Amino acid sequence: MSVYLHDIPLPEAQTRFRQAIQEAGLWRVLGTELIPLDENSLGRVTAEPIWARISSPHYHAAAMDGFAVRAITTNGALPSKPIVLEIGPEAEYVDTGDPLPDWANSVIPIENVESLDERGNLTPEIRKPASIRIRSSVAPWSHVRPLGEDIVATQLVLPAGHILRPVDLGAIAAAGHQEIRVTRKPKVAILPTGTELVPIGSQLKAGDILEYNSLVIAAQIKSMDGESTRYPITKDDFDLICERVKEAAQDHDLILLNAGSSAGAEDFSAKVVEKLGQLLVHGVAVRPGHPVILGMVNRELGILQGGSETTLESRVSIPIIGVPGYPVSAALTIDIFVEPLIAHWLGRKRNELPTEMATLTRKIVSPPGDDDFVRVAVGKVGDKLLAAPLSRGAGVITSLVQADGLALIPRGTQGLDAGEPVKVHLYRSRAEIEKTIFCIGSHDLTLDLMSQFLAEQDRRLASANVGSQGGLIALRRGEAHLAGSHLLNPETGEYNISYIRQYMPNIPVKVVALVGRDQGLIVKPGNPKGIKSLRDLTSPNVQFVNRQRGAGTRVLLDYHLKLMTIAPERIVGYSQEEYTHLGVAAAIASGRADCALGIAAAAQALNLEFIPLFQERYDLVIPRQLAEGDLLGPLFELLAKRRFREAVSQLPGYDVSVMGTIILEE
Amino acid sequence: MSVYLHDIPLPEAQTRFRQAIQEAGLWRVLGTELIPLDENSLGRVTAEPIWARISSPHYHAAAMDGFAVRAITTNGALPSKPIVLEIGPEAEYVDTGDPLPDWANSVIPIENVESLDERGNLTPEIRKPASIRIRSSVAPWSHVRPLGEDIVATQLVLPAGHILRPVDLGAIAAAGHQEIRVTRKPKVAILPTGTELVPIGSQLKAGDILEYNSLVIAAQIKSMDGESTRYPITKDDFDLICERVKEAAQDHDLILLNAGSSAGAEDFSAKVVEKLGQLLVHGVAVRPGHPVILGMVNRELGILQGGSETTLESRVSIPIIGVPGYPVSAALTIDIFVEPLIAHWLGRKRNELPTEMATLTRKIVSPPGDDDFVRVAVGKVGDKLLAAPLSRGAGVITSLVQADGLALIPRGTQGLDAGEPVKVHLYRSRAEIEKTIFCIGSHDLTLDLMSQFLAEQDRRLASANVGSQGGLIALRRGEAHLAGSHLLNPETGEYNISYIRQYMPNIPVKVVALVGRDQGLIVKPGNPKGIKSLRDLTSPNVQFVNRQRGAGTRVLLDYHLKLMTIAPERIVGYSQEEYTHLGVAAAIASGRADCALGIAAAAQALNLEFIPLFQERYDLVIPRQLAEGDLLGPLFELLAKRRFREAVSQLPGYDVSVMGTIILEE
Repeated sequence: MSVYLHDIPLPEAQTRFRQAIQEAGLWRVLGTELIPLDENSLGRVTAEPIWARISSPHYHAAAMDGFAVRAITTNGALPSKPIVLEIGPEAEYVDTGDPLPDWANSVIPIENVESLDERGNLTPEIRKPASIRIRSSVAPWSHVRPLGEDIVATQLVLPAGHILRPVDLGAIAAAGHQEIRVTRKPKVAILPTGTELVPIGSQLKAGDILEYNSLVIAAQIKSMDGESTRYPITKDDFDLICERVKEAAQDHDLILLNAGSSAGAEDFSAKVVEKLGQLLVHGVAVRPGHPVILGMVNRELGILQGGSETTLESRVSIPIIGVPGYPVSAALTIDIFVEPLIAHWLGRKRNELPTEMATLTRKIVSPPGDDDFVRVAVGKVGDKLLAAPLSRGAGVITSLVQADGLALIPRGTQGLDAGEPVKVHLYRSRAEIEKTIFCIGSHDLTLDLMSQFLAEQDRRLASANVGSQGGLIALRRGEAHLAGSHLLNPETGEYNISYIRQYMPNIPVKVVALVGRDQGLIVKPGNPKGIKSLRDLTSPNVQFVNRQRGAGTRVLLDYHLKLMTIAPERIVGYSQEEYTHLGVAAAIASGRADCALGIAAAAQALNLEFIPLFQERYDLVIPRQLAEGDLLGPLFELLAKRRFREAVSQLPGYDVSVMGTIILEE
Repeated sequence: MSVYLHDIPLPEAQTRFRQAIQEAGLWRVLGTELIPLDENSLGRVTAEPIWARISSPHYHAAAMDGFAVRAITTNGALPSKPIVLEIGPEAEYVDTGDPLPDWANSVIPIENVESLDERGNLTPEIRKPASIRIRSSVAPWSHVRPLGEDIVATQLVLPAGHILRPVDLGAIAAAGHQEIRVTRKPKVAILPTGTELVPIGSQLKAGDILEYNSLVIAAQIKSMDGESTRYPITKDDFDLICERVKEAAQDHDLILLNAGSSAGAEDFSAKVVEKLGQLLVHGVAVRPGHPVILGMVNRELGILQGGSETTLESRVSIPIIGVPGYPVSAALTIDIFVEPLIAHWLGRKRNELPTEMATLTRKIVSPPGDDDFVRVAVGKVGDKLLAAPLSRGAGVITSLVQADGLALIPRGTQGLDAGEPVKVHLYRSRAEIEKTIFCIGSHDLTLDLMSQFLAEQDRRLASANVGSQGGLIALRRGEAHLAGSHLLNPETGEYNISYIRQYMPNIPVKVVALVGRDQGLIVKPGNPKGIKSLRDLTSPNVQFVNRQRGAGTRVLLDYHLKLMTIAPERIVGYSQEEYTHLGVAAAIASGRADCALGIAAAAQALNLEFIPLFQERYDLVIPRQLAEGDLLGPLFELLAKRRFREAVSQLPGYDVSVMGTIILEE
C-alpha cells in the first residue's frame, strides 16, 4: 500500500480532527477528581464553580486591639467633655480578630483611650483597667470586620475552568472547603520510533540521531499540565509499532507517534493508524511541520473491566497524532494540535501567546499554500518593534531556543518584504524584549561571552550574523542597536570609518574598539594539504570555504587576493559561503573543505590548525542616539570589567588592549 | 520589654535586609546540583553557561529521501539532455537523516530522478535501481544538513541563570549533555502562630480563625520555584515559638513567622527575633502590610557536622521575616520581600509583573508616608484602560482573587483623583483584560451566575457594585461596558429611562431587561420583631440596615417612605449602609440588624425570612457603541440560552419572562 501526503489546510485539518474526537465522545472534560486543598492544587483547573459554604469572617471581629463598646454610649464625648465607660457592662478589651461581645457594635483602638484604675486615676494596666475614659465618640461598626466582610456564605468564589493561583487557595479555604474538585490530567503516550534513534547520552556514530524529541514533548505536555509517558525507542518495524500503539491506547488519552510520519520507505505511522483505526489527515499545509498525521485508534475493550475509571467505559477510540521528526516541526506540531486538545480536556482556556505587530527586517518567501511559522528575534530599536527572521531549518532547534516569537505568514500570501508589518506571537514579555540588545553584523566569539555576562546585568544580547556591511546597513535602517564590524579600507588601512560614512551617511555614531584579533588560515589537523599562504588556495586539490559577501573576513580576503593578483575563480569553493567563523571551522572539521580564512578561536574550538596571517580590529558601531540610552549602559560598563577582559583574553588570538577605546564619538 | 512599630520606608527596609543577608554571606546563589536531563528539569535555573560538547548534526546528513551524489557529476544535465548516474560509484540511495557517503556532497530528492534497471529501462524499484537518470544539475550541499547546522561544538547553548523551557532541554541534549547543573531550590520554613488559629476544615466557633495563610504562602513559594515546609500551628507562647524557630533554622534558608508581627499583647515575633538573632526592621511604610518584621536568626552550629551540605558550613545566621496576619498583607509581604530573595538565590531574574498606565475610576486617598498597593479590576472600555479600585480591607482575600492588578500609589502622594493616570502591575495578560466585561452599577445575584456562564464563552465579567446611579454615571464617563440598573421613576412608575436621560444625556444606549424580581423585607428567621411593612421600621427597637445612596433599592425605599410620609430619621439604622444585597442579609444573619429592604434570593442564601412587598425590573444598560462590539456578543447570546434562563429562574423571587426584552435601542 502506498501512502501519499496531502496538503490539507490547517483549519480543515483541525476541524476533521475535532469532529472525530467529538464523534468518539471525547470533546469534553475527561474527568474530575477531588483533591485535598494544599499547595499541590496550584495550577489545577476547577471542575465546577466553587460556592462559599461559610462566611468570612464568620462572626463580627475586632479589627484593632482596643475596647469593644456600644457606639451609642460614646455619643457626646469631646476632648473637653470626656465620657467614662466601665469595664464589664460598657467596655471590654479585645485583641484584633477577637469576636465582639453580643452587646457591642464598635471598637475603640487602644491608643484612643485612657485607662483608669478603681479610683479613677490613670493606670499603666492599659489592657486591664477598671474603666476607660474617651474624648471622642465612635460611629457604629467602627474598627469592626463585620461577618461576611470578605465572603458571604453562598456567594460564588471561583467559576469552573479556573486555573488555581496561590490566593485562590486561600479564598477557597476561607469559604469553608478543604477539598476541591478539579479536572483530571490527560495522559499522553509519547512513542519515539526510528531505527536510527539512540538515547540521550549515547556515543554517536555517523547516522545515529539523538532521540530528544520525546523529552521536549514530555516537557511541553508537562507545561500544559498534562501527564505523559515516554516510551523507549521502537525501531522502524510495522508490527512492533502496532503492538506498542495498542499497548499505549489502553491507558492513555492521546498517543503521539514520533516520527515516521512522512512518506519514506521506513515511514510506518500512517499505515499503523490505518490498521488500528482511522487515518483522518496525512499532511497539513503548515510550515514547519508538513508531514503531520491525525487519526483515531481503537482501544481494545475488555481489558478495562473492573477498572476504576468509569468515565472511560464507552470509549472505543482515542486520538493519535503522527508527529514529524524534525525537532522544530515536532515542537510546533505539539503547540498547534495538542495544546488546544489538552486545554479542552482540562476545561481551561488555551495558552495563547500575546501578539504584537512588528516590522520585518528582511524578506521572507513563503509557499502560498502554507501557514508558515517563522521563528524571529524581536527587539525594540527606538520606537520600532523589529522581527528578525532566524534560521528556517526544521532541524535547527537552537532557532527555537533563540526565538523571541513566531511570525505567522498566513496561507494565501507568497511572503513578506523587508519593512512590512508582521504579526508576531511572542514567547517573551514586552519587558524582556525591551531589555534586549539587538546586535547585528559580523560574528565574533566575544559576543557569546558578552551574552553570558550581559545576562547577569538584566540584558539580553540577540545577535544576528549578517556580516559587517549588513550590520551597518541594518543600523542605517534603524534595525539594530549596534553592529560588530571589522571592515578594512584597502586604500587607507583604516578600519570601519570609511564604510560607516558610506553606509550610514548623516547618522552620528559612537565607535568603540572591542578586540584586536588574528585572522589566518584554518586547516585540518596536521595541515595535510600543506597550505601556508593565500597562494596555496589556487591549488585544484584544495577545497576552500568562504564567508558570505559583506563579511569583514571576506573583504580582507578579497583585498589580499587583489594585492596578490589571485583571481577568485581559481579558488575551488570560493562561492561556497558560511555565515560565521564557527561555520567555516565546522566545514573543515567535517571534511567538507580543506581551508578557510578565519579567526584562531574558531580553529581552536574544533581542534583545527591555525596559520596566522593578519591582525585586525573588531569594533562596535552604535548610533549616538542609542548609545545614550539606558539599554546599552551595562554593555559599556562590561568593556571596563576586569572579569570580562580576562575571559576574552583567554580566547586564542585575541588582544584586549584596545577594548573600550573610543575610536569615534560624534 | 516593649516593642514599638516604626514606619521605615520600603526601599530602606529592603536595603537593611539585603545588607544583613550580604553580611551573612548569603546574597548569592545558595548552591547547585547536577540533575538528569528529563522533563523535571523544566523550570529549573541553569547554574552555569551550557557549552556544546558535540555538534548537531555531528555528520553531514541527508535532508531528503533521495540519492547522494557528487554535485559536479550532475553538471550539464538538462530536460533534453539527461545524465545517467550509476548506483554505487556515482549515486547511493539515502533516507532523510542518513549520513552522506564520504565521496558525496549533495542529495537529489527521489521525486526528481528516474529509476532505471540494468537495461536502462524505467523500473518501479525506485529505491534500488541499477542507475538513475536526472534532467537537471544540483548545486553542492543541496538537500544536505551539514555538520553543525544546528549546533557547533563549543558554542554557547544557554547562559547561566536561564529558566529551562521545553525546547531548551532539546538543545541541551542535542549539544551532548545528559545532565545539567542547576541551582538548588531555597528551603523556606512557614511557621503559623496564633492561639486563635485553627486548621482548614475545622468546625468554627466565634473567635476561631482559619489558618490558610501558610497554604497561600506555600503555594507562592512553589510558584517562585522554592521549596517550603508548612509547620503545624504554634500557639502564642514565646518559648514555644522560639523553640520552633530554632528548629526550623537548622535546615531552612529562610523562616517566615506568621503572624504576631504587630505590637499587640500576644505579638511575640519581634521579641523572638531579638532573642534569637538581630531585629533589623519592625514596621514598614507599605500598605497593606505595615507590621512587617525583618531580621536574622542564628543557626546553632554543631548539629550540621558531617552533613553533606558543605555550602552551609560558614553560615551563622539566616533571614527571618515576620509576616503580618491579614491574608492580603501576608500575600503582598511575600511578593515584596521573599520573591526577590528567592530569585537571587536561584540565580534567576525577578518575576516582574508587566505594567500599564490606566485611568483610575474613583478617588483613592492614601497616607503620604506609605507605598500603597491598591488592588484594582482592570478593563478596557473603548480605547481607555481603566483601573477600578476594589476593597482595600487587608482581610479581604477575595479582593486579591478578583484583582486584575495592583495600582501603586507611591510614598509622597496623598492619593489620586478619579480620572488620573495610575501605574498598574498586571496579574492578567493584556489579551485576558481585553476579554473582560466591566459591569458596574447595582448588584444582582444573577451577575454571579452570568459570570460563571460567560467564563465558558471566553469572557470574564468583572462587576463592581456602586448602585444603579453610580453605574449610569460610570457609563457616562466611559468607565464601564454596561450597568445593571433598577431605578424607579416615582412620577411615571417607569424603570431606568428617565435616569438614563438625566445621567447619560446625549449617549445613545441599548437597554435590555434582565429579570423581574421581588423586593421585600428581609428579617430574621421567625421574624421575632413581627415586622410586616415599612411602617414597622419606625419602631425604636427595630434596627434597620440600609443600602447606599444611589442604589435602586434605596430609591425604592425612599419612594415608598415618602408615599407613606415616614421620615427616614425615625428609622434606627437608616444611615448604616451596605453595598450589596448579600451585605444587608449578612448584617441581619449576624444579628447586627433586624431588617432590611432587599431581594428574596439574598434572604434565602442566608436562611432568612422574606416578606415580598414590590416587584421591580432589573435592566442592563449598554452604550450603543459598545453594544455592537465583539466583546459583548456572548453576553447577549446568554440571555437567550435556556440553560441560563433555567438557572436564574431557580433563584427565589426571580421572573425570567422579561429576560432579553429590548426596552430601548437608539
